[in-house]
Amino acid sequence: MLQDFSNRLDCLGTETAFLVSKDASEFASKGNKIYPFHLGDININTPFNIIEKSEIAMKEGKTGYVPSEGIPTLRDAIADKISNERAVKLTRDNVIVQPGGKPVILKFIHCLMNPGDEVLYPNPGYPIYESQIEYNEGIAVPYSYNSHNDGFSIDQIQLERSVNTKTKILIYNNYQNPMGSESSKEEMKWIANFAIKNNLWVLSDEAYFNIQYSGTPRSIISLPGMVDRTVILYTFSKTYAMTGWRLGAAIGPKSIMKHFSKLSVNDESCTNHFIQYGGIEALQGNQEGAKSILNKLRSRRDILASKLKKINGLNLFVPNSTFYLFPEITEIYNRMSATSYEDFRRQTLLNTGVAFCTREHFGRVLKNETKKYIRFAYSGINIDQIEEGIDQLSNFWSKL
Amino acid sequence: MLQDFSNRLDCLGTETAFLVSKDASEFASKGNKIYPFHLGDININTPFNIIEKSEIAMKEGKTGYVPSEGIPTLRDAIADKISNERAVKLTRDNVIVQPGGKPVILKFIHCLMNPGDEVLYPNPGYPIYESQIEYNEGIAVPYSYNSHNDGFSIDQIQLERSVNTKTKILIYNNYQNPMGSESSKEEMKWIANFAIKNNLWVLSDEAYFNIQYSGTPRSIISLPGMVDRTVILYTFSKTYAMTGWRLGAAIGPKSIMKHFSKLSVNDESCTNHFIQYGGIEALQGNQEGAKSILNKLRSRRDILASKLKKINGLNLFVPNSTFYLFPEITEIYNRMSATSYEDFRRQTLLNTGVAFCTREHFGRVLKNETKKYIRFAYSGINIDQIEEGIDQLSNFWSKL
Repeated sequence: MLQDFSNRLDCLGTETAFLVSKDASEFASKGNKIYPFHLGDININTPFNIIEKSEIAMKEGKTGYVPSEGIPTLRDAIADKISNERAVKLTRDNVIVQPGGKPVILKFIHCLMNPGDEVLYPNPGYPIYESQIEYNEGIAVPYSYNSHNDGFSIDQIQLERSVNTKTKILIYNNYQNPMGSESSKEEMKWIANFAIKNNLWVLSDEAYFNIQYSGTPRSIISLPGMVDRTVILYTFSKTYAMTGWRLGAAIGPKSIMKHFSKLSVNDESCTNHFIQYGGIEALQGNQEGAKSILNKLRSRRDILASKLKKINGLNLFVPNSTFYLFPEITEIYNRMSATSYEDFRRQTLLNTGVAFCTREHFGRVLKNETKKYIRFAYSGINIDQIEEGIDQLSNFWSKL
Repeated sequence: MLQDFSNRLDCLGTETAFLVSKDASEFASKGNKIYPFHLGDININTPFNIIEKSEIAMKEGKTGYVPSEGIPTLRDAIADKISNERAVKLTRDNVIVQPGGKPVILKFIHCLMNPGDEVLYPNPGYPIYESQIEYNEGIAVPYSYNSHNDGFSIDQIQLERSVNTKTKILIYNNYQNPMGSESSKEEMKWIANFAIKNNLWVLSDEAYFNIQYSGTPRSIISLPGMVDRTVILYTFSKTYAMTGWRLGAAIGPKSIMKHFSKLSVNDESCTNHFIQYGGIEALQGNQEGAKSILNKLRSRRDILASKLKKINGLNLFVPNSTFYLFPEITEIYNRMSATSYEDFRRQTLLNTGVAFCTREHFGRVLKNETKKYIRFAYSGINIDQIEEGIDQLSNFWSKL
């Protein structure tokens, strides 16, 4: 008999949202119509100039290995972009190209966390933080948010209580998935001071930095004392509708990037060669494509939000960034006499075809939570489907 | 002051061959001519039909996320290819698409090795085996090769002596980098029985399986009792000159592939979407491109081998597979009074422009080694440069 698999696999989490996809597919396969609000994917084409430059590179023979750090011109382009947008001075030595934003999470944790170290991470938040911390034998210490009429704010009292001598890392996801929340200037300053005071490394997940419907985004790396302790997770996925390309970067102090590069040599050799030319075009070429993506998303947000707001028992804050809405639905949940989030989600799906994730898909539910939340993604669904789907939803929930 | 980086980084190795590239670049930047025999990269274009199908997919909008396991049609195509060539019965459930062959090493070790477990790995061999075993807190136990006139054979006596109750994994790289060696039928059978007898999992690195200049390649997975304990590292890199595309796969028992998939969700989400259509074309489309690559490599091998054989003090076995030659150069090394492999390599580079890796780049040198070896890769250098470079080499070494 073969021996068992490794023990570490017991600590590996996943994105449980895939179960929602599975349920939705099964329901669709019976001839039902599905309204896909569960996907964080984007059903908009990558801008053509990016495709064109990648195609040229592919045909010119940019098909061999490149340095694990990425091609120098793309690293320069990323360093310029980040320097300009975040008001810092970075060079290519601060940039390691990665096959997507996600590999930055793994490498950051590997570089900075010892087994037993504590990591503060947002909850609700992107579920891979929790999974990678625990898989790599760290202690995942959640911090949460307070809800207000004008959005969510980080629970600073909880953060102060949670930090101790074992705490080494803070994961910060401004322009947040799933809540869409963003820090006020004061909050971001407080977080920066908190990190400095407690001598923490910061992973700043900035996947949605450029998905801003008005105003100018801010990064924590711009604040005094942060550039030396922050690694930015950068991705081309959202801004340029390139989720399936797998192109991103880690941006941080040279001393850490050296180790990122060595991990890349060990883990994946390098990122696809010719798509890196597409990345240069994305950053330095015509920006009409990115603007058009943002405009489409804005229209969807406005319609989805206006329709959701009319639903009795649903409380909604409409964020200025990301492509998610995170309404509170406690009253509807209670009216349904739902026995669990999964029960609520499934009953709604089977009665309306509307597929969404719940708060449960974004890290373990915390003890003191009384309100119930669900997440609508509008990146993968067109306006007519949004309208039709929410009508179904509204109709079903109003009859409960 | 910021806290230290993680302790685990101290155990991380790398591909030290990058140092050779650096030395070569520096020498070239002074106006010298370089003959690049050190690169495992391929300076031949990817077959055009593969490029074309990827381009079509990219333009058709195959740019969103795909399942972490890969697109079903590519998984089917790989399962068919492996089933036909290796005489086993596999389905898509046995296949997880990966961004290259290398990520299979990391995931295999994560799935099957606990800290303290012992792993038998080939040495000289691909340096990432040793690095990943030790980085993930396993014990890397090398097994070596005996040299004969007609090639190299695995030291079975050493293997028998090295196995114990803690041994869990055997890494087997038939059609071997850097030696080019291959197992006889008897040797492969012996290895399979050894794995079964000692209840070992086998990682069969088959990166060079289709780089065969005559005859039919064999896989250990074909032997009785092996399909349930073997994971194949498959890559498109060599056969189709796609090193920079980053496309490969893990092929193994469903029960393990489930965990590979979960690790993919955590580590990289998925492999680039549109290049997976290129992968289908590579496997199922016109094979003239792959044949042409092999023919070019064969011509290079024949010329390189015939020129090397004329060098006094150099002993060469010419393998039937891979794109490496691994001559023994002990006598020349001694004539040079080289103080180390690095001294030998650098002296030769600075006097001839010929860049190559030495045995030292392929795992730690073992205690009982008396003979000296270097590796010539002929995948990244054209015939005229091969001739010119070896003339320089021959001239320099003959004067020692």
